[in-house]
This record gives sequence, structure tokens and C-alpha cells, in this order.
Amino acid sequence: MGESLKDKVAIIGIGCTKFGELHDRSLQDLMVEASFAAYADAGIEPDRVEAAWLGTFSPGFGGGKASVTLADALRLYGKPITRVENYCATGTDAFRNACLAVAAGVYDVVLVVGAEKLRDRPVRGVQREGTHPYLEAGSTPPGLFALAANRYFHRFGGDRRTLAKVAVKNHRNGALNPKAHFQMEVTEEQVLSAPLIAYPFGLYDCCPTTDGAAAVIICRADLARQFRDDPVYVKGIGLAVETGWPFFDPTFEYIGFPATTAAAAEAYRMAGIRHPAREISVAEVHDCFTWTEIANYEDLGFCRKGEGRYFIEEGRSALTGDLPVNPSGGLKSFGHPIGASGVRMLTEIVLQLRGQAGARQVKDAELGLVHNLGGPGSVACVVILGR
Amino acid sequence: MGESLKDKVAIIGIGCTKFGELHDRSLQDLMVEASFAAYADAGIEPDRVEAAWLGTFSPGFGGGKASVTLADALRLYGKPITRVENYCATGTDAFRNACLAVAAGVYDVVLVVGAEKLRDRPVRGVQREGTHPYLEAGSTPPGLFALAANRYFHRFGGDRRTLAKVAVKNHRNGALNPKAHFQMEVTEEQVLSAPLIAYPFGLYDCCPTTDGAAAVIICRADLARQFRDDPVYVKGIGLAVETGWPFFDPTFEYIGFPATTAAAAEAYRMAGIRHPAREISVAEVHDCFTWTEIANYEDLGFCRKGEGRYFIEEGRSALTGDLPVNPSGGLKSFGHPIGASGVRMLTEIVLQLRGQAGARQVKDAELGLVHNLGGPGSVACVVILGR
Repeated sequence: MGESLKDKVAIIGIGCTKFGELHDRSLQDLMVEASFAAYADAGIEPDRVEAAWLGTFSPGFGGGKASVTLADALRLYGKPITRVENYCATGTDAFRNACLAVAAGVYDVVLVVGAEKLRDRPVRGVQREGTHPYLEAGSTPPGLFALAANRYFHRFGGDRRTLAKVAVKNHRNGALNPKAHFQMEVTEEQVLSAPLIAYPFGLYDCCPTTDGAAAVIICRADLARQFRDDPVYVKGIGLAVETGWPFFDPTFEYIGFPATTAAAAEAYRMAGIRHPAREISVAEVHDCFTWTEIANYEDLGFCRKGEGRYFIEEGRSALTGDLPVNPSGGLKSFGHPIGASGVRMLTEIVLQLRGQAGARQVKDAELGLVHNLGGPGSVACVVILGR
Repeated sequence: MGESLKDKVAIIGIGCTKFGELHDRSLQDLMVEASFAAYADAGIEPDRVEAAWLGTFSPGFGGGKASVTLADALRLYGKPITRVENYCATGTDAFRNACLAVAAGVYDVVLVVGAEKLRDRPVRGVQREGTHPYLEAGSTPPGLFALAANRYFHRFGGDRRTLAKVAVKNHRNGALNPKAHFQMEVTEEQVLSAPLIAYPFGLYDCCPTTDGAAAVIICRADLARQFRDDPVYVKGIGLAVETGWPFFDPTFEYIGFPATTAAAAEAYRMAGIRHPAREISVAEVHDCFTWTEIANYEDLGFCRKGEGRYFIEEGRSALTGDLPVNPSGGLKSFGHPIGASGVRMLTEIVLQLRGQAGARQVKDAELGLVHNLGGPGSVACVVILGR
């Protein structure tokens, strides 16, 4: 294993659309809005971009045309554009590949776009793309993660009330965020009395499917101050892929995700982080379901396995806690356009580190973490950003 | 624009399955065979691989599960695996991203796999993935490239006999290749009397749809001789994306592909190549249709625009010519499993540069070129390899 990515790449521009049910806007409309916002934020002209990476899980009609779609949307012709797909870690892995290219010294200024339209077609079609035609027939993401949540309760205690606290927190944060899909608070009572999706998950335990796009401009770290006074630096990135069939391993308890543990270990190694709970100021983690956020606390080393329920119950991950998690509102409230989510989370952490997060600003944010989790916990990507 | 990739990355292992209609073998079977052949060729154990890149256009049921599929096939757990998709340039772009990561110094030894199963389902479904639902409804790849071929004839002369010479050459080469989809020679008469697909293309002017996988192991160039005495070095890589709608630009003649020109210019710049026709010893180019190979000669700078017909007619691209093109048999005869093709072409050039290409060995091969072209000529990737 070679060198670290630490302090070789900087984020100098960010852009993000309103997330939601955007039937009047195309995938290209969203790409354009997010990218031009990022150009403006970085203070660059579009032709300053030398290469682009696009994260999109399912760009329509099954996978083709992705790089060309971005080229035509942005009139970014004659340049390299790569589409990356990696389940729900698509956005962060697109960012990772772009960072590797900049760290290689081949490009100075690179655009990363995450974009997804999920609301224009039956959700069932998108789900089928992530599930095996025979072995997982009939299974859905809520059903798969519900198995894990129930096993977790069996092993460590906690119940639907524990989960509801995650929904209440993330909706409270999202209510402060004008770009969130759902800008409304919910009470614990509302969460508990919502229609059941897959026990123990009710409607408010599940993130929505959403349309949206986000973009970041990165550059070589040594050039960053030519563009702005407050660049944000990449401190570490880890990606890890595990089995797609955790259910078939009788020795695996499925109460947490080894992919997250491995990705975090690599990102922490690069960033030189030894005590994540003490060193990280703020985190955006993959709360596809309320229980997932609790598992993430543990897998990311914010607390020990089995103690995630206390982390939420004691308010440690609240905006006012000692390690605020998902100040943006999370997937739960901001929404989850698959390929866009990871890039959107990066934009939130950049805002927090710059002190520009407004009503949801975390105090003294120095070091931020972004985490995506894909499939039934099979793929994870962790990014550490710092000032 | 920053540094070059020249001589920073080496290929130390290659593997390739038999290409063809492989109904008895799964995508994972093919990944395993190609990857373990590459491990053996590099003389490494699988756990020496630190990260992997997978090129696959349509890994089944619409795009998901790709990285996890490779992880489970190879038991490559807890490590980074990225899926890249970039139309028919998917394989070479996966290779490009892997090279950037090694050049960044983050990984020492990396696996690149290209894999595709196209024969298990209706071709129409795969085609739809690459075409716009409204604007291109009813169009097919043969139909789109036929427009260009006819325009080319109108402008520069030539006819179906010119095209037939490409088919005859590539089938002759493929007949020497035990891994080719079609190992048979065809006569010019056979090509001309074959059923018409889209004028001027008959059956033998079109590459087949195929199942297959290929893999390469790359490493930091300065480590390469620890693994073998005859590593092959990456001299340059270029990727370029142009519009997906060349047909709608009335000023564009559609007699060649600006994406290829731009990708080649970048690859030649890195490799320090000024006179491609004189400096390149052997090339594998994207002959999705016979006419495409003729356009590629011109766009890659092997001859001037409009002179590609003479390049084939005079035998310059034959195995015994001064710049042999598609000694493997090309897409035409070796077959075209979309994501696999680019990686398969890399394995052929490595064999040629090592002098291991057997009956189809090109004399004194010093510098080789690989070229993929995707969509209606919208995406191109060019890789230069040398000893």
C-alpha cells in the first residue's frame, strides 16, 4: 500500500440543487444548476475544468449515455468524463476517483457531479436494479435492513422508540435546510404511529426517493489559495467492498457493516485520526433507514458496538451534541437521489467547515466526515475533510 | 493541465477468456477465469491486489451490483472496487482510472477487469440502453454508423468493396486466434453477398455481440521488474467525450469522430508521439463496423482524412503491412462484449509487445495503441503502451 491522499486535493467550489420531487426538471437541468453553482462558488469559468467525474446509479433506460449526458448538459466537449457507479456509494466513489486523478498530477481542476432522477418512474424498477433476480426476488431495501435492525434489537436492546429519535433529529435539522426534500419537523408520536413499511420500520424510518444533483470543484491542494481563502482539504478517503450476500453467512450477525469499518479504517489511517469521536467535529452519514444511522455511529467508531442507541438517546449526535451527525437533515429529510447523495453530503461538510451552514451551523467545525453505504451494507466509502 | 502518465504505470499480468456465445458460463465465471489467468501471468497471489476497477456496461438487470459482483466472484473483500461505465469505451476508461490511482501513489498493485454478458438476453434491450427514448427511437448502432459511412463514400469515394477488405483482413487475423468469437476466414465475395443489415453494411460489416472477460494487473512502474523481466509500460492515455447528438449539427459532416482525434492528441502528447504512422508498431482499434476502422485510421493520424480507403486497399493495416491494425481479429472477429473489449485489446497489445502473439505476431513491435469508441462516436479512449 502506497501513499496517502492527505492534503493533496482541495475543494474550491460547491453547488447543490433543491432536492425533492422535481417532475418539471430533467437530469440535465439538475446537472447544469449544480455545476454552474459550483463554478460560481469557485469563481471559475467552465472552461477551467480539465476533466469530470459523474456519479449516477441509474441514468435512465438502464445505464448508457451517462458521460455524454453530462457533456451535452454542460457543453463540456473534448474533455475526459468518467461515469462511476457503486451502489449508494456512487457519489463518494466518483469523488474518490477524481481525487486520485488530481493527486496523480494529471489534472489541476476537476468537476465532480452526482445526479439522479428517481421520481419519474416506478420505484420498483430502480429497486430491481439493486437486487438479484432469483436470490433476492421480492426483497426490498426496507425489508433487508429491517432484518438487521431486528437482530440488533435482539442482541443489544432498543426498540422503535430508539429509531424514532433518529427521525425526529434528522427532520428537525432538515426543517432548517431550505434545500431539503422534506422541511418539516416530526414528533416521536408521529413517527411511531406512521404506517408500517417493514417491521421495525415505519414510514418515517425510511429515507425517501428523490430527484437532485450536487457538484464540487476540486483542484491540486497547492493551487487552492489561488481560487479562494478558505479551501477545504481532503484528509483521507477509504472505499471497501464486501459480499453482496451477508444473509447467507451463518456466522455473520448482520448487526453492523464491515464495509464501513474497513473504509473508515483506511480513511482514518490516511488522515491520521486515532480517536474519531474526539477528533471529528461533524459527520454526514448514510441514514437510508433510521437504524442504519445507529449502526453507522458504531461502525465509524463514534461509539462501541451496541452503544449506538445511547449515542442518539443522549443527544450526542444532535446539532448541539458533541458530534453532530447529519446536520443537513440526512437522507431521511434531505432526500436520497442515489448518485447525488454522496456529493451532496460533501457540500454540506464544506459549508460546515467554512462556517456557512446558517441555522444548522455546528460550532467550531474543524474536521468533517462523509459516509455512504451501498447495497445490503456491501459497499462503503468514507471521506474526511478538514480546513 | 498537469503531468503526464508516461512511464509511471506498468502492466505485469494479463488474462482473457475465450470470447463467444457462452450460455453455460456466468458473468462471474468469466471474471474469475480472466482474473486468475492475470494473477498467474503476473506471478502474484490474489491478496497482492490492493484495489480493483471493473469495466462493465450493463451488468444485468440495469446497472446495479457491479462492484459487489466482482468482490464475490474473486473473494476480494474489504478492498476498494470501482465500477466504471463509459459506453463502448468502458474497458479502456476503467483501465485509465486504475492507472491514475497507481500514478497517484495510493496503490502499488491493482486489478482491472472488463466483463460483459450480451448473449443471454435480447440484443434490443442492450441497444435501448444506449439510445434516447424519443430522439433516437428505432435507431440502432448499424443504422447510425451507416449514415456516416454513406456520407463518407459521398465525400471521398469508395464503396462496399472497400469495406469488405476490412472484414476479410480481420477475419483472417481472427482465424489465427484461438480465443476469437469467430475463427474463420471470409472472402470478399462472401462479405458482399451476405444479408444486408443497414446499407452499406452487410452482416460481415458488423461486429457480433459476444460474452467475454479480460483482466490486466498493473503496478507502479518502478516496482514492475520485481514481478517480471518484460513489463509493458503505459506511455499515454487520452479520453474525450463529445456530443451525443452529432446528427443535429448541420455543420458537422459525420465522416469521422472528433472524440478519437481529441483522445489521440492527449495520448500522443503524453507519450511524446509526433508521427503516429511511423512510430506506432501495432494497433487495436474499435472496428464496431468495417467503415469505423477506416475512419479510425484517419482520426488516429495513421493517414489523412479521406485516405483511409487506400490504407486498407494497399494492405498497410494487414498483419504484414507497415502498421498492422487489429491483429487479434478486432471486434469484427474476436467479438465485442462491451465492457470487456477495451481490456481485451490491452491484452493483445501486451502479447504483441512481449513477442508472445504466436501466429499473429507483428514484427518488431515496440509501441502499441489501443482505441475504443463509444456511442455514435461520442466517446473515445486511446492508450499507448510500450516496452
